[in-house]
Amino acid sequence: MGKSAIVLAAGHGTRMKSRTHKVLHRVCGKPMIMHILDTLNRVGLDQIIVVVGQQREAVTETIKGRVDIAVQEEQLGTGDAVRAALPHLRDDTDSVVVLYGDAPLIQPETLFRLFETQWHQEAAVAVLTAEVDNPAGFGRVFLDDKKQIVRVVEEKDATEAERANRLVNTGVYAYEVNALKSSIARLKADNAQKEFYLTDTLGILNSDNQKVVPVSVSNVDEIASVNDRVQLAHVEKLCRRNILEQWMRAGVSIEDPDNTYIESDVELEQDVTLLPGTMLLGTTKVKSFAEIGPNSRLVNTTVGENTVVQYTVALDSVIGNESQVGPFAYLRPWSQVRDNVKVGNFVEIKNSEIGDNTKVSHLAYVGDAQIGRNVNVGCGVITVNYDGEKKHRTVVGDDSFVGSNVNLIAPVTIGDSVYICAGSTVTDDVDDDGFVIGRTRQATKPNYVRAWKAQKAQGITRDPSLTT
Amino acid sequence: MGKSAIVLAAGHGTRMKSRTHKVLHRVCGKPMIMHILDTLNRVGLDQIIVVVGQQREAVTETIKGRVDIAVQEEQLGTGDAVRAALPHLRDDTDSVVVLYGDAPLIQPETLFRLFETQWHQEAAVAVLTAEVDNPAGFGRVFLDDKKQIVRVVEEKDATEAERANRLVNTGVYAYEVNALKSSIARLKADNAQKEFYLTDTLGILNSDNQKVVPVSVSNVDEIASVNDRVQLAHVEKLCRRNILEQWMRAGVSIEDPDNTYIESDVELEQDVTLLPGTMLLGTTKVKSFAEIGPNSRLVNTTVGENTVVQYTVALDSVIGNESQVGPFAYLRPWSQVRDNVKVGNFVEIKNSEIGDNTKVSHLAYVGDAQIGRNVNVGCGVITVNYDGEKKHRTVVGDDSFVGSNVNLIAPVTIGDSVYICAGSTVTDDVDDDGFVIGRTRQATKPNYVRAWKAQKAQGITRDPSLTT
Amino acid sequence: MGKSAIVLAAGHGTRMKSRTHKVLHRVCGKPMIMHILDTLNRVGLDQIIVVVGQQREAVTETIKGRVDIAVQEEQLGTGDAVRAALPHLRDDTDSVVVLYGDAPLIQPETLFRLFETQWHQEAAVAVLTAEVDNPAGFGRVFLDDKKQIVRVVEEKDATEAERANRLVNTGVYAYEVNALKSSIARLKADNAQKEFYLTDTLGILNSDNQKVVPVSVSNVDEIASVNDRVQLAHVEKLCRRNILEQWMRAGVSIEDPDNTYIESDVELEQDVTLLPGTMLLGTTKVKSFAEIGPNSRLVNTTVGENTVVQYTVALDSVIGNESQVGPFAYLRPWSQVRDNVKVGNFVEIKNSEIGDNTKVSHLAYVGDAQIGRNVNVGCGVITVNYDGEKKHRTVVGDDSFVGSNVNLIAPVTIGDSVYICAGSTVTDDVDDDGFVIGRTRQATKPNYVRAWKAQKAQGITRDPSLTT
Repeated sequence: MGKSAIVLAAGHGTRMKSRTHKVLHRVCGKPMIMHILDTLNRVGLDQIIVVVGQQREAVTETIKGRVDIAVQEEQLGTGDAVRAALPHLRDDTDSVVVLYGDAPLIQPETLFRLFETQWHQEAAVAVLTAEVDNPAGFGRVFLDDKKQIVRVVEEKDATEAERANRLVNTGVYAYEVNALKSSIARLKADNAQKEFYLTDTLGILNSDNQKVVPVSVSNVDEIASVNDRVQLAHVEKLCRRNILEQWMRAGVSIEDPDNTYIESDVELEQDVTLLPGTMLLGTTKVKSFAEIGPNSRLVNTTVGENTVVQYTVALDSVIGNESQVGPFAYLRPWSQVRDNVKVGNFVEIKNSEIGDNTKVSHLAYVGDAQIGRNVNVGCGVITVNYDGEKKHRTVVGDDSFVGSNVNLIAPVTIGDSVYICAGSTVTDDVDDDGFVIGRTRQATKPNYVRAWKAQKAQGITRDPSLTT
Repeated sequence: MGKSAIVLAAGHGTRMKSRTHKVLHRVCGKPMIMHILDTLNRVGLDQIIVVVGQQREAVTETIKGRVDIAVQEEQLGTGDAVRAALPHLRDDTDSVVVLYGDAPLIQPETLFRLFETQWHQEAAVAVLTAEVDNPAGFGRVFLDDKKQIVRVVEEKDATEAERANRLVNTGVYAYEVNALKSSIARLKADNAQKEFYLTDTLGILNSDNQKVVPVSVSNVDEIASVNDRVQLAHVEKLCRRNILEQWMRAGVSIEDPDNTYIESDVELEQDVTLLPGTMLLGTTKVKSFAEIGPNSRLVNTTVGENTVVQYTVALDSVIGNESQVGPFAYLRPWSQVRDNVKVGNFVEIKNSEIGDNTKVSHLAYVGDAQIGRNVNVGCGVITVNYDGEKKHRTVVGDDSFVGSNVNLIAPVTIGDSVYICAGSTVTDDVDDDGFVIGRTRQATKPNYVRAWKAQKAQGITRDPSLTT
Repeated sequence: MGKSAIVLAAGHGTRMKSRTHKVLHRVCGKPMIMHILDTLNRVGLDQIIVVVGQQREAVTETIKGRVDIAVQEEQLGTGDAVRAALPHLRDDTDSVVVLYGDAPLIQPETLFRLFETQWHQEAAVAVLTAEVDNPAGFGRVFLDDKKQIVRVVEEKDATEAERANRLVNTGVYAYEVNALKSSIARLKADNAQKEFYLTDTLGILNSDNQKVVPVSVSNVDEIASVNDRVQLAHVEKLCRRNILEQWMRAGVSIEDPDNTYIESDVELEQDVTLLPGTMLLGTTKVKSFAEIGPNSRLVNTTVGENTVVQYTVALDSVIGNESQVGPFAYLRPWSQVRDNVKVGNFVEIKNSEIGDNTKVSHLAYVGDAQIGRNVNVGCGVITVNYDGEKKHRTVVGDDSFVGSNVNLIAPVTIGDSVYICAGSTVTDDVDDDGFVIGRTRQATKPNYVRAWKAQKAQGITRDPSLTT
């Protein structure tokens, strides 16, 4: 059986009030239209046609290579949009599902049931219906005693009694291909908006005495659509909640799911703990017994077992096992933090490797560097990697001690077991076991401050004896 | 038609358990009483009278100049409070609305309808009613077949059948002025609390066969009042949600409205994105395509187009277009960050201008400074602006390079295209094109550390040869 | 009357997908089983028996010393678990409540009513019932006209009519001790799981014509139990909300209770304000008019009156009155910040005392130090407390000025009224009133940069004249 999908993505979405096309707005980190394409891929279709219209270049740029593109030149309604897609349908198509680029939460199982019901019941069309608490705005669906759809009444045409019906039309359909073609051909734009409505195909098929059957969506959240940014935030919340519940059921502790954000491609192991304010984005992976958060944002970052990451932003980095990162640490891309490492507060790591058992505890910048094992990188240490023209690398061997406030002026190589005194500026390479100092000795003028302040109070601002 | 409002704000609010008067507690950044005064200003009234009582000095201090003040000497009930206001009413008053200082969410449209209904129906009083899910605690309102109010039954006096009525009295009324005066004059304190209840005016007017008409509030959230801090948090949430939805409908993407905070005077352009943990306070303004958050708090700060601000606190500052701020940056008051600037991690800016295309990437403090264009302010740079007595200014010209860990001892002026080596302390001015170094050369003792550690292990703690 | 409790805590909880036993998972900072033991302590019992089974060592380790332990060798159902506890019951026991280690929110008042009802009504067993919106999964409870329980029907055995009954069995019981023993002895495992169900005792006692009476739980949230981590997050939220509402009613302003986290042993005074993202853990105490947050995490930390703490992590520390901490400060254990102190941005304090009126405004590390009063600790100051082998102390007297980027190499003692110039490294003690400088003078090469860059552009990378 040849199965196709037509996805309507032509309308820009005026109520979004955006320069960006509606279907390109992101939900859980991914453009809405991509959620739908990912879902359709899991259904196993022979063809996906996306109908584009307004801002077609931007939409096409996002989806190209994955689907066939049809163009709706003018916004003449959903029926017209489907008509634009029909010439692109493969000849061996038997069944066609029509769905919407602004309703990204529909699940593969639902579409599968829709196809299956249309096919097994030999229906002209299977209509996805929903039982909703508040049916306002939806078309109401009426069934006969064989549980077939005999009528769909739009809100504006409904009597008060009909409006009480809470079984509604979601607008998602699976058509037998010929029923689709023949009914689309007969659509008329005899309404106030002068538009062709896809929904009218149901009436046409009914009047043909063809079979129109309902398929009830199991979770009404699946049909939530986005017409403005209030709805966008609502769909975002539903999408997020789905992902969070999946991970909780898989053995991840999430202290506050209302304040935790996980994108769809993240991978988590059992017994991970996520504290409030945690955002796991991109292809982030976290291993067992790691604890992330509070307030950490990891993008494409891997965290090892038993590692704690708090109040940290990390991008494109790898953190090993049994390590401590943060609070207030920033790992920029290509940071590799090995096992049992401490990257402490107000520390930035960039494009560097930090070896096992090494500590970079506070107020330091390690960039373009390779730091060995068992190294102590003191408070305030800076790898001076930029000379105003180029970036250079710093290497520090194992077991070395880099004192506080040391400047390592790259390119520079420090051997193993080197000791660098606090406050030194290091410009030259140091071999293993070397001892380095590069700072000025303290000069003290005893009993000086009181007199000096008295002098200043008289307006004498600079004492010549202080010019050293 | 002369329209007045009487706002009751006498009671301190025992259940708030606070040294601060109830109506001075803040909702969305503004004392509750100020929300009501702002709303009343939008209704277009001839007079606003606020009845103060407990802590009258503090309340009066907040509202003075905007309203007339009446004083209720003793807390003898709402009827008594209105009585205290009557002598202040302007002679040309036709209609008087009475409302409450602890219910800050009422909307101008609602008050407008209340006045209008009283006036057009020539009613003695129009009563704001609400249809609520749980009417417990409210007086129930009963209508006759002309949709006029015939009776209001207090909870304690209601039969079980009456209690089932979900149409309730909100306590907000618009009176014809003479009906108000005559009914207030006849109030009695014949109840357990010995208080005069404003609600009793409705019964008096009913028994006079005067017209008492209902006006239904469209959104029951408007009548939420604050008697304790649980209710304060609830009202805060409703207020916040109103503001957020307004901005979402105007084209602002808010990833998680449950974790975003915007005060009422903030201005946002279309296609701004706000990530979770964002707080926009005071007169903050954000321009198109800027992205704020996560976890950023901007107070009275302007952000330009396409600028990204993350994990940042900014106060009274201006940030230009195409700039990057954070993560973990702190802009203190009077910071002016121009276009295409990077203010990176662990950077503090205070009372300084940072020119176009300049980078202050990490671990730096720029205070009381003017930094030119295309400047690189290296890691760990400090403008030493305080000498223990006064603050001084630092100036750095265009195209200059300030190396890592440099101290710029203010007052100091650095020209254009100057190069300052890492680790230098700069005390004297530098002309254009100058090269500056001020650090000690590195001294290295090869093959030293092993012997030294062995020595220390024997208890010899300081090697005389290390005294340089 | 001898009162005992049997707590069932044998089952590991497969759906938790965890290496940690279910009852050891934390809710509001405390293992679930400890919530129940704390509640039971407030009921005033003569004996508490916990039935352990899977992972009994870990569970016992957590609760030992507080309770008697019974062991259920095999997981043969709740009836079998209670049977394992019976031999441990004290001889003077009259009444026994049975409850569950995975339902931590039950309140003392509820258990008290359960005991009392069993006792006063001379019932064989008092059953805690609940009226729930969705009874699916629960046993339905049916009463006779004397309000006694005549039948409990399990979900699977219920007719459609019976399923509509929303009065359910929570599984928590208070038994007369002999009724418990006699009914437990007659339990049979004649069901699909071959387990002994405690619920079957109700039918046995009913068929004995003994009195089985209901006690309705006042708040159904109390019976929420945890079988997976979605439920764990739900129970966490309920627990948190209880704590937050208690503090709000006591006079604490919590701007957003949905984004505030307070553990059960925290103490707050009236008129404290908590901003979003605040976490107060352990034995943290906050005094009147202090404002904590946004985004602050205090563990076992005391905060004085009128103090403001923002974007800060503090552990095991004491902060005085009228002080300012943060944004982006980190107080590590044993920090004592006195009154009217400023600990500013990117500042770390560890195991140090900071005296009254002292400022550590930015980018500094104060560790293992005692800083006096009225001291200015400049930007970038580092107490170099670690020499690679040991930690040493730094002392700074009152009224001293420590300039920016100064290294204080410990052990070192600085007297009162000392002035240390910016950029100095201090290795030796300084007496009162001393003036210290220890930095290299600036060398400037005028008109140099352009020529030098031109040279470099030709590939000459190091100018010999720059070797100073």
